[in-house]
Amino acid sequence: MSENKFEPITGTVMPRYAGLPTLMRLPFTQLTDADIGEVEIGLIGVPWDGGTTNRPGARHGPRQLRDLSTMVRNVNRASGINPFALCNCADLGDAPVNPADLLDSLQRIAGFYDTVCGRGIAPLSVGGDHLVTLPIMRALAKNGPVGMVHFDAHTDTWDTYFGGNPYTHGTPFRRAIEEGLLDPKRTVQIGIRGALYNDGDNDWGERQGIRVIDIDEFHAMGLDAVIAEARRVVGDGQTYVSFDVDALDPVYAPGTGTPEIGGLTTLEAQRMVRGLRGLNLVGGDVVEVSPPFDQSGNTALVGATMMFEILCVLADSIAARR
Amino acid sequence: MSENKFEPITGTVMPRYAGLPTLMRLPFTQLTDADIGEVEIGLIGVPWDGGTTNRPGARHGPRQLRDLSTMVRNVNRASGINPFALCNCADLGDAPVNPADLLDSLQRIAGFYDTVCGRGIAPLSVGGDHLVTLPIMRALAKNGPVGMVHFDAHTDTWDTYFGGNPYTHGTPFRRAIEEGLLDPKRTVQIGIRGALYNDGDNDWGERQGIRVIDIDEFHAMGLDAVIAEARRVVGDGQTYVSFDVDALDPVYAPGTGTPEIGGLTTLEAQRMVRGLRGLNLVGGDVVEVSPPFDQSGNTALVGATMMFEILCVLADSIAARR
Amino acid sequence: MSENKFEPITGTVMPRYAGLPTLMRLPFTQLTDADIGEVEIGLIGVPWDGGTTNRPGARHGPRQLRDLSTMVRNVNRASGINPFALCNCADLGDAPVNPADLLDSLQRIAGFYDTVCGRGIAPLSVGGDHLVTLPIMRALAKNGPVGMVHFDAHTDTWDTYFGGNPYTHGTPFRRAIEEGLLDPKRTVQIGIRGALYNDGDNDWGERQGIRVIDIDEFHAMGLDAVIAEARRVVGDGQTYVSFDVDALDPVYAPGTGTPEIGGLTTLEAQRMVRGLRGLNLVGGDVVEVSPPFDQSGNTALVGATMMFEILCVLADSIAARR
Amino acid sequence: MSENKFEPITGTVMPRYAGLPTLMRLPFTQLTDADIGEVEIGLIGVPWDGGTTNRPGARHGPRQLRDLSTMVRNVNRASGINPFALCNCADLGDAPVNPADLLDSLQRIAGFYDTVCGRGIAPLSVGGDHLVTLPIMRALAKNGPVGMVHFDAHTDTWDTYFGGNPYTHGTPFRRAIEEGLLDPKRTVQIGIRGALYNDGDNDWGERQGIRVIDIDEFHAMGLDAVIAEARRVVGDGQTYVSFDVDALDPVYAPGTGTPEIGGLTTLEAQRMVRGLRGLNLVGGDVVEVSPPFDQSGNTALVGATMMFEILCVLADSIAARR
Amino acid sequence: MSENKFEPITGTVMPRYAGLPTLMRLPFTQLTDADIGEVEIGLIGVPWDGGTTNRPGARHGPRQLRDLSTMVRNVNRASGINPFALCNCADLGDAPVNPADLLDSLQRIAGFYDTVCGRGIAPLSVGGDHLVTLPIMRALAKNGPVGMVHFDAHTDTWDTYFGGNPYTHGTPFRRAIEEGLLDPKRTVQIGIRGALYNDGDNDWGERQGIRVIDIDEFHAMGLDAVIAEARRVVGDGQTYVSFDVDALDPVYAPGTGTPEIGGLTTLEAQRMVRGLRGLNLVGGDVVEVSPPFDQSGNTALVGATMMFEILCVLADSIAARR
Amino acid sequence: MSENKFEPITGTVMPRYAGLPTLMRLPFTQLTDADIGEVEIGLIGVPWDGGTTNRPGARHGPRQLRDLSTMVRNVNRASGINPFALCNCADLGDAPVNPADLLDSLQRIAGFYDTVCGRGIAPLSVGGDHLVTLPIMRALAKNGPVGMVHFDAHTDTWDTYFGGNPYTHGTPFRRAIEEGLLDPKRTVQIGIRGALYNDGDNDWGERQGIRVIDIDEFHAMGLDAVIAEARRVVGDGQTYVSFDVDALDPVYAPGTGTPEIGGLTTLEAQRMVRGLRGLNLVGGDVVEVSPPFDQSGNTALVGATMMFEILCVLADSIAARR
Repeated sequence: MSENKFEPITGTVMPRYAGLPTLMRLPFTQLTDADIGEVEIGLIGVPWDGGTTNRPGARHGPRQLRDLSTMVRNVNRASGINPFALCNCADLGDAPVNPADLLDSLQRIAGFYDTVCGRGIAPLSVGGDHLVTLPIMRALAKNGPVGMVHFDAHTDTWDTYFGGNPYTHGTPFRRAIEEGLLDPKRTVQIGIRGALYNDGDNDWGERQGIRVIDIDEFHAMGLDAVIAEARRVVGDGQTYVSFDVDALDPVYAPGTGTPEIGGLTTLEAQRMVRGLRGLNLVGGDVVEVSPPFDQSGNTALVGATMMFEILCVLADSIAARR
Repeated sequence: MSENKFEPITGTVMPRYAGLPTLMRLPFTQLTDADIGEVEIGLIGVPWDGGTTNRPGARHGPRQLRDLSTMVRNVNRASGINPFALCNCADLGDAPVNPADLLDSLQRIAGFYDTVCGRGIAPLSVGGDHLVTLPIMRALAKNGPVGMVHFDAHTDTWDTYFGGNPYTHGTPFRRAIEEGLLDPKRTVQIGIRGALYNDGDNDWGERQGIRVIDIDEFHAMGLDAVIAEARRVVGDGQTYVSFDVDALDPVYAPGTGTPEIGGLTTLEAQRMVRGLRGLNLVGGDVVEVSPPFDQSGNTALVGATMMFEILCVLADSIAARR
Repeated sequence: MSENKFEPITGTVMPRYAGLPTLMRLPFTQLTDADIGEVEIGLIGVPWDGGTTNRPGARHGPRQLRDLSTMVRNVNRASGINPFALCNCADLGDAPVNPADLLDSLQRIAGFYDTVCGRGIAPLSVGGDHLVTLPIMRALAKNGPVGMVHFDAHTDTWDTYFGGNPYTHGTPFRRAIEEGLLDPKRTVQIGIRGALYNDGDNDWGERQGIRVIDIDEFHAMGLDAVIAEARRVVGDGQTYVSFDVDALDPVYAPGTGTPEIGGLTTLEAQRMVRGLRGLNLVGGDVVEVSPPFDQSGNTALVGATMMFEILCVLADSIAARR
Repeated sequence: MSENKFEPITGTVMPRYAGLPTLMRLPFTQLTDADIGEVEIGLIGVPWDGGTTNRPGARHGPRQLRDLSTMVRNVNRASGINPFALCNCADLGDAPVNPADLLDSLQRIAGFYDTVCGRGIAPLSVGGDHLVTLPIMRALAKNGPVGMVHFDAHTDTWDTYFGGNPYTHGTPFRRAIEEGLLDPKRTVQIGIRGALYNDGDNDWGERQGIRVIDIDEFHAMGLDAVIAEARRVVGDGQTYVSFDVDALDPVYAPGTGTPEIGGLTTLEAQRMVRGLRGLNLVGGDVVEVSPPFDQSGNTALVGATMMFEILCVLADSIAARR
Repeated sequence: MSENKFEPITGTVMPRYAGLPTLMRLPFTQLTDADIGEVEIGLIGVPWDGGTTNRPGARHGPRQLRDLSTMVRNVNRASGINPFALCNCADLGDAPVNPADLLDSLQRIAGFYDTVCGRGIAPLSVGGDHLVTLPIMRALAKNGPVGMVHFDAHTDTWDTYFGGNPYTHGTPFRRAIEEGLLDPKRTVQIGIRGALYNDGDNDWGERQGIRVIDIDEFHAMGLDAVIAEARRVVGDGQTYVSFDVDALDPVYAPGTGTPEIGGLTTLEAQRMVRGLRGLNLVGGDVVEVSPPFDQSGNTALVGATMMFEILCVLADSIAARR
Repeated sequence: MSENKFEPITGTVMPRYAGLPTLMRLPFTQLTDADIGEVEIGLIGVPWDGGTTNRPGARHGPRQLRDLSTMVRNVNRASGINPFALCNCADLGDAPVNPADLLDSLQRIAGFYDTVCGRGIAPLSVGGDHLVTLPIMRALAKNGPVGMVHFDAHTDTWDTYFGGNPYTHGTPFRRAIEEGLLDPKRTVQIGIRGALYNDGDNDWGERQGIRVIDIDEFHAMGLDAVIAEARRVVGDGQTYVSFDVDALDPVYAPGTGTPEIGGLTTLEAQRMVRGLRGLNLVGGDVVEVSPPFDQSGNTALVGATMMFEILCVLADSIAARR
């Protein structure tokens, strides 16, 4: 295994704070590199927050996660999964973006992911605000809508903002459903909470068939039942995992744009992601880490560790499909 | 409803970080304004920490809460209550204070609240250290003692400090009981913890009849039982809700003067306040947010959200009494 | 003078940290208010950073400046000017913006300033990123181009970014010159420094006639000669003062998006602005304060104090023209 | 009791933020002082982090804990124990160290503790990184191996780092077992979690007989069962308590070198330590507080409070043995 | 010299971050200790900020200065003075205070200094807010008024605040002059700046004969001329040195309650204090370090170094008088 | 020029915060890569602080400088030098280190630089603490001692610490002179200041012939004379430039282990480095950036910009020698 070039550099040889900070200390492999064909899972940054309606800064997420992800090791103690032994993983760098043009950015991002997905590489991304999931899905769901396990404080299915804006980080999944990229009946949203603008705020999504498990129902059901329900909803179709760090309580993830108190603990989040093992997973993301609001890097450490948890079940799923 | 001038400005029209930071984006209405007579609930700051025996800074609480309270929306997802639809709410500004004279400050504050209460406005305040609750009660309890649901790490019923000082943020409720403003038999204190100066530290309060539920009993009883016990204690008499943010574990509220580890979670606190629905509530406060010890604003976001939770049950109670 | 309603609330009566944080503790007067007609100088926030190509956050500038501007007092010790005694000043609130749409934002901002300027109110603004000066000039320079004294580390006269984007915070003055809003021959740029993308980076502006005094020439000339040169360049035509806080060394203004070491001191900046007394000033702004990069508020205190310095010479100029 | 010179200075006479910051406001008593013979429990700092393989700074731990420990009071509310009434306690200052020489430091530290233990003083230490426990044990376990209740995210039983280094903060307990200082069969490790370097990472310790209760087993068993199991493992032999703050979730202890998400809460940790009452305790430590990674002092407050919890059960055990 | 017990512990033996943080690593000697009679210069903390009208926190100054003062070494490179070789210096601990009672605090502080001065010990203090200089002078100037070299952004000679309060940190020197403790004709104030409340703000002091050198005159005169002028003003009578850290530009001392931009550099301040060598100095202080506004400790490092500079000229003066 | 692969990625195509943070956005080229032979200047990190006697953290310097160095552009405005057009530059990654073994680390570092220098690559390094310059010189000065322009607050020529330790960050240049790597007569130290341990602290270096220009002499001479003197001292022999960020005043570089107030400004430092143009330069370094003491990254931005300034004169020198 140690001759595998797609493995992290170990911290017992080079200290974890040393060296270039690639995602999880994986090799940096560009789409134009010769060995790109060997990559099975691509870790990708999307440094863009143009869809943010409130506090910005998620554009800095990929860089800070690269830094803190060097703290992560190889083997998941809880599940025993070593994702790097199961699949060839690499840091594919950042998708191209345009901080001054929203629509141009959506196109650039989708174009990058078209190439990734076209090569059969499963994308595991780090945002960026939550709107980046929309262009990723445009590339990923070319052959039909995917299901989704979605961790978030917000449903992100609002319609428009500021007098008609259809594209913000509050609207990606409404657009994805409208565009046929996301199957609402195979979508489950976990951790939803916070005050609403109006009484009917979340009706649209539920009318489409989304299963919303808000924080109160989460605690009423208990962790195991929530996992079972999530597995039931997405079934065995292709499924995406989207993890907005504001699903967590702000004490775990203060570095985010729209924190809502009363959220999940990291341990609950870790266990839920581990509970997705065996699903038919095709990609995932961790979004809304905004480093300017937590320069300590603690939020990014949480984000990087959650990314590792998703990587474990994703690699396990890909290896199982081979 | 949208023609109600006493409603928050919505974040889908003006971004939440924009505009003047009034409490919950409500209109700023001074006691001398023409439309003050329409206000039913007054949100008020008390920028004063002269009673603080340890780390100061709570004088800056009202301003930082004004800032962070602009993150709050209108409708409580858990309870369905929209307080702004139930009652006319306004930001009445800050009570007058004198940072260099304790007794003068107590008088100035009580005078302001005399006017507020005299107009039949229910006060929902943000401190300031916990001593500010004393002058508020002097105005509020003119016709007889109130009951209280009190969230705190400390009982605040010590007698004197530093060789005889009767007025500090460790003594307000002893003074309030002595002055006949607070009915100890209708008072419940939740979340108490931390080491004691001496063995008998808390005996006085319990001897008066206060029901102390310390953090260990809280966990032993369970949340629902604590709510039931709190409701039993205060009964259907007039009741005040006082929320010291150090009731919360310091990870949720590091910006406070006397943090004690091992406290409540925000979710526990939110649920307890929601559990007070239907009581005969006459006012409330959130105190001891000290911004210099948490310049990130996270503590203030917690404080503002707890203030919104109290507002929901307070507005519901007032509307029910109409 | 004390019966003037357009005066700051004094800190010897209400502590400076108390009360609603309006700009310099001035009355909050909306464009629709009855007494808007009495206002001569309008202090305005533009909470928008959609033109930012690097680190965002300037959208939070107006709110943090409102907070810190309450530290400012009334009379300029150095010049003796009391601007509030010279002109009626008010906080007009924030211009409307759309964080998810650049072109829509430019329109909304220009529309707001059309009303302000149409009423004969001189605007003194706080950004926001530097692109906000463009829509301000579109409203202000309706009758012909203005001159400008421009403090900055960067010329902000680049052409396009990211493959053709004409509107970013690196391009406002190229656009303003092209649109006939700004007279390059009556424009002086002070404090320019930092490495260049390419050798010819700044040629365009100088070819149009802009007088660039970079940091090395600034020190070679000396402060008094720079002031004299700036006065010579702008002459007695209508002149705007634009102060990008990154003109200052980053130790004075770390909370900004594109800091460049080796900049001006605050004292040099204060003296230069004081040296503009007697010019024909029509407005000004302080831009690029990005609070997430300095949560201490120190950068905002600097910004607020520079805004006060500009207000002094602006009020003096307006009073002289009466 | 108040005439006892080995008592903390009370906060009702001298404010907690005033005066010299000795550990828990105890008298500073050096090994050469006349009254050292009266001391029963010595609170000692070990300002050294030369064994740190990742983020440094634990050398600053003792000073910041001295500062924050002045917030602690005398009587444990939960258990009723007043340790200062049970035993004479003093701050013995810091052990000598050499920041530029690892082996020399281990010798200096062991030498200091030889004197402490030789005088029959039970040591309660604050690190420093976890390697400091090794020289402490060399002094403490002169007459045979001790048992240990060990709270940590990591087992600290790795073999070598960086090509053969036997002494790092990842290896102290392997060395202690090899040197016959620690009885693995009377050792329990609680809170272990985080990804592993390799599959077999923790096999060595468990093969020696260490009882590892990782975070998942901790939650599966429940707090009371974990306490019972820990008591069963260590039995009635001499037992040491070692508390690495990274046993806690990083939200409670961000100021540490190798944080792992998904850890214990402070309340869980407090209760577990209280559950050790009645064991045959001979010393303890709190390690890995790294102030540079949490300048707010919150981690140190947690560390100081945990130190107080250990002090309570240690003093109770010593008093019972008299 | 090395057998002198009143010398700092050297950093080449015990690292500077280790050990108990006494002021400049001097021995802690209480007023009741046997060897108090040998002390010539007493370093004293006054942890009190009850006179603060704006941002509090200076009560935490002494503790943070104790911490950072351990970075200071023995010999002043510029002047060659080793103050510890000239005079016996000790940390006398903190003066007693009462955070909840202003007048009581002034009495307690004055009482402590009565004892200090009564023993012939020259006091070098660290505040606390600037009001603490008043009770110090009450003890120090028992035999007639002293002169003063006063570094500050503010004159601190206002009359009253908040409707008549005579004692705040804005009024100590007006009170000291009225009480005959301070000779205005032998008082020089350096670094004064910032906007004024009203035009006549500073007239009172100058009418009494105080020589005010504001920041503009400071730069116009040049450093050497300012030193000469200061020496001329105070002459050879007994002179006190009071250093408010807000004399410095806020970049050097952000941790203070009322920062004013455009201030002195630390190097200018150091040189000015060195320029006081040979005067008849009787004591000094460093005040208004507010740690909550600069948890990095950088302001306290500045304060500690300035305290060392004052100590050098004070020790030199005392040694010369022997 | 744009087809040169050894050029930074431009910020007008990829935003500066995006992509992998290599030093100055240069290609990452390892010593084993095929095109290593084309590299003329190697930018190298040395993530090690084992020689630190005080506050640690400089081991994190290389990573934070990589992050902040992406803010730097290509062309030096003041000198017109574009170093990337003059020489092939690359990020060679980090030298190998061992955080738990000082002597082993010195060997590993020297070994890495042996390869670098053996290939004729001029090293421009970022530390790490100042002891890293010793192994770099061991590789660089194989053919005879080099001269040095050394910017620092400290001479770093102490002999031993803690009872005999010869290798700390306070001793590298004493060792380098003793080992014949550094020619003291061609060494100039600029910016020296701060209190001394003893009177004779700096005698050794000056006795060897080092030209020490302390901060007072620096200001007395003036910048141009200091440059001339530095040029005179080093002459036309091979010369190394070592820049300790604590040469700067702590306001510019708070993130360092041993700050001394009263230091250089960044502008003075930039101009001095520019004044070295035309010397026979063979390498340089920027050391003692300690990110944990300045998580804002401002110190690292200063360090990265100073590294760019050194790169400009180094590239110019190398190009001139071709």
